[in-house]
Amino acid sequence: MNNLVISIDAMGGDNSPRVVIEGLAIAAKKNPDTRFLLFGDDAKIAPILNQFPDLKKVCEVRHTNEMVHNEDKPSQVIRNRNTSMYMAIDAVRKGEAQAIVSAGNTGALMAISKLVLKTITKIHRPAIVSIMPHRNGKYVMLDLGANTECSAINLAEFALMGDILAKHALGVERPKVALLNIGAEEMKGKEEIRQAAHMIKNSKMNLDFHGYIEPHEIPNGVADVIVADGFTGNIALKSIEGTAKLVVRMLKDAIKGSFWAKLGIPFMLGVMLKVKKTMDPRLYNGAMFVGLNGLSVKSHGGTDALGFSVAVSNAANLVRQNFVATIREEVEKVDLDELSQEAIYEVY
Amino acid sequence: MNNLVISIDAMGGDNSPRVVIEGLAIAAKKNPDTRFLLFGDDAKIAPILNQFPDLKKVCEVRHTNEMVHNEDKPSQVIRNRNTSMYMAIDAVRKGEAQAIVSAGNTGALMAISKLVLKTITKIHRPAIVSIMPHRNGKYVMLDLGANTECSAINLAEFALMGDILAKHALGVERPKVALLNIGAEEMKGKEEIRQAAHMIKNSKMNLDFHGYIEPHEIPNGVADVIVADGFTGNIALKSIEGTAKLVVRMLKDAIKGSFWAKLGIPFMLGVMLKVKKTMDPRLYNGAMFVGLNGLSVKSHGGTDALGFSVAVSNAANLVRQNFVATIREEVEKVDLDELSQEAIYEVY
Repeated sequence: MNNLVISIDAMGGDNSPRVVIEGLAIAAKKNPDTRFLLFGDDAKIAPILNQFPDLKKVCEVRHTNEMVHNEDKPSQVIRNRNTSMYMAIDAVRKGEAQAIVSAGNTGALMAISKLVLKTITKIHRPAIVSIMPHRNGKYVMLDLGANTECSAINLAEFALMGDILAKHALGVERPKVALLNIGAEEMKGKEEIRQAAHMIKNSKMNLDFHGYIEPHEIPNGVADVIVADGFTGNIALKSIEGTAKLVVRMLKDAIKGSFWAKLGIPFMLGVMLKVKKTMDPRLYNGAMFVGLNGLSVKSHGGTDALGFSVAVSNAANLVRQNFVATIREEVEKVDLDELSQEAIYEVY
Repeated sequence: MNNLVISIDAMGGDNSPRVVIEGLAIAAKKNPDTRFLLFGDDAKIAPILNQFPDLKKVCEVRHTNEMVHNEDKPSQVIRNRNTSMYMAIDAVRKGEAQAIVSAGNTGALMAISKLVLKTITKIHRPAIVSIMPHRNGKYVMLDLGANTECSAINLAEFALMGDILAKHALGVERPKVALLNIGAEEMKGKEEIRQAAHMIKNSKMNLDFHGYIEPHEIPNGVADVIVADGFTGNIALKSIEGTAKLVVRMLKDAIKGSFWAKLGIPFMLGVMLKVKKTMDPRLYNGAMFVGLNGLSVKSHGGTDALGFSVAVSNAANLVRQNFVATIREEVEKVDLDELSQEAIYEVY
């Protein structure tokens, strides 16, 4: 019963196609209902795929010599339909696959995905979403970089899509949704954020809306969905990643420099690995482009096989739950354009 | 030779005036050249001050019954000249003190400071700056929340003020200056950031300008001055603070839950405390409002005596180095208004 098909850009990422195929081998075991459509250089793919006979049974390879490179500009890549990335995305448009996963160039993946899959009717802008760890669980945050500047409507739509993603990917029945903002007394944040808050409250979206959230409150798990424009979301995401690494690094350096601390390693190793695992970026790999007619997932370019498999499993999971169709249905129920004029009135 | 005078809002913060006075006692020992002008309720101040006879010798208390409360709006507080905060700031305008420190309401402190001290001629907007820890040292970041939206000129001026602060407060001879931006391939960040980069490169500011920096690169210490608009800076600051706390918290929780790990505490305690101390928010207390005719420093409202003393010592240190006068002189040398038109041309 392998009726679920994921399209794979086998040439994307730092160590492709090896890491991609090794990742698929892990993902195939976890997703026995899934087949894979691989696009890329067969001369490079075949010898590696032959090492994984079980995986090979559920793979179909479509050969192409061309691929998107890291330094390629989005404006260039959208004109070449013969790259492994373009062909993999196009397979979703043709209905041959229900989702595409690539570890290649983010800008290229976004540009081709938008061009080929098109934005869902009534959704104004697609967004990039990731699943992230907080103190006692996970949350989704969007937009992480697809849109530098966003209107209130964009933010309200992100809230809706984030809500659906949290239900589907995190299994939260009624996700708590919040808008990322700053709370300094001297200012109430940006106008578009205030307008978005008004729209979310007054629309038919029926979200469990918790108003504004400041970045330092995120780790406490007060919200399941954090909504921001792409610039702000990207700044928050990278600040979080950088700081987590810094603290772990400082601790490592300090332990290395201390004879006493080294004696404690046998006792502490277990909990250190546990915390490291909770924060392991591989387990949160796979930024999803949502709002398109088809699911496009970006794996980190430098991830390993485990990380790639997580991105693939996430994609398969969302396909199984009809994620894209749910977004389509839910946006039909709300009319944000009508609310937007009213929102501007109310805020001023 | 107590010719340096710092004005103190004795009533600001969660546990005032006790924490304020205890903090001053620590600061007085570290700054033997400094006197303090305290504004607040003498009935509350006197009994505590009497417990610190050495401190009392270098303090002058000016009584007022009124104070700014945490819930007060900036628009209200600027109309009452009899609050301890207003009077403390006004002492700087009158030349009775060279800097003011308050642990009170941030918005109020910013509003009154701007109204009373006024922005330095040729500086368009003041900014909030903090000193922060990176992997092997410290850096300054601004703006942290004074201005939600900023023009290229604002950002260029922040770069200049940050450069001077890094020289004075961190002792870096030639600070490396960078603009906070996102580096996703699909977008080159915001227009005003690109314009600011052009202006910094082409002005007479003569900064050691390193272009853009992404938030996850900050902890590596690649720049001494990080420049952002107030919204972005505040988001980054609070993401960093929240994540540092999260990682430490996760580690603590994990250790508490493990018998083995607890046995390792005696070995590891030293390095854990060392890392904790490096990240100790009290040692980085004191956000400075720069760009005004006088230095206004905001201590965290919930800090303790040590934290408050750090804010006071930072203020005294900057006064000693003629920080405000240096900014005044340096902005005289550059003409950003002239460059701004050109920048818009160049970027497009």
